[in-house]
Amino acid sequence: MATVTNGVNVDALLEAREALKAAPEAAQFTWRASSVWREGVHSTTTIQNYFGLGQEQSHKAESTFEADHPEVFAAEDNGITPIEFLLVGLAGCLTAGVASVAQNRGIQLRSVTATVEGNHDIRGILGADSDVRNGFNDIKVTFTIDADASPQEIEALVAQSQKRSAVFDALTNPTDVTVEVA
Amino acid sequence: MATVTNGVNVDALLEAREALKAAPEAAQFTWRASSVWREGVHSTTTIQNYFGLGQEQSHKAESTFEADHPEVFAAEDNGITPIEFLLVGLAGCLTAGVASVAQNRGIQLRSVTATVEGNHDIRGILGADSDVRNGFNDIKVTFTIDADASPQEIEALVAQSQKRSAVFDALTNPTDVTVEVA
Repeated sequence: MATVTNGVNVDALLEAREALKAAPEAAQFTWRASSVWREGVHSTTTIQNYFGLGQEQSHKAESTFEADHPEVFAAEDNGITPIEFLLVGLAGCLTAGVASVAQNRGIQLRSVTATVEGNHDIRGILGADSDVRNGFNDIKVTFTIDADASPQEIEALVAQSQKRSAVFDALTNPTDVTVEVA
Repeated sequence: MATVTNGVNVDALLEAREALKAAPEAAQFTWRASSVWREGVHSTTTIQNYFGLGQEQSHKAESTFEADHPEVFAAEDNGITPIEFLLVGLAGCLTAGVASVAQNRGIQLRSVTATVEGNHDIRGILGADSDVRNGFNDIKVTFTIDADASPQEIEALVAQSQKRSAVFDALTNPTDVTVEVA
């Protein structure tokens, strides 16, 4: 195991698991984003601060994201379409899981790539057919992994990553979302 | 209505609605993301091409996103946490909807800001408690809107945006996600 260098501090994660079993209040995180409308369907969203381990926390840097609609929707395409951000989160979460599980299992990764495809019938959001949902019809993630492991071990890595993925859960199961005007 | 300048081309969207009623195959979009593992739980995801209106399409520019875990998770914090990308998408989608509905209703917007908060019990992803889900417990979006409209009209704008939001639907209802190894 000492020669596996995927760069994940699994010992710290296993210690956190044990610590948070005894202190569930510290496990309550709040992630935050702030957005400002620019013009048309273009908005800018900023992320820096969050709450966790019982106190305010901050990312090392502020991150800023532009969302817009593409030109085929008669918009300016100043950034990716909002629904595409869900694919970014899904790719990042499952990849982080693959790296973490590999580290825990003593599997050296050499490369991990993923392609994510979300099928979307836009008649829903346009109001062209009330039987069509607004969101994705379905999503497919395809991993290509080069690792010091058998195909079966690689399949198992991906399956365990999916089992513990925050974003996979958020997309495959419903979440209560409240939208209010201040 | 001629004096309302929110910058949304509502006429084009209403034309698209009618056109796609007669050509549902053109409404089938596929959004795509490609990610590469960097080190630890850090990955880089790229978005540029997508499929829609019956052919390959491309955003004007390639967009690249860094995902990582924060330092409190013993990681390098080279980017936002994957689950935070869901909040970016939600903010962008609901804001785009507010602007579009306002344009359609002849309401001049002056400013629209939103704060999004996602509550997350991280015992799920750490495997500390199998009764805790991996994703968000719940999400709250709070809009502050300055517009040439009554409070009731502003409430109605936000309600209609939510009703037609792709990302709101994707988070509040389940989507089938398939994860495979190539």
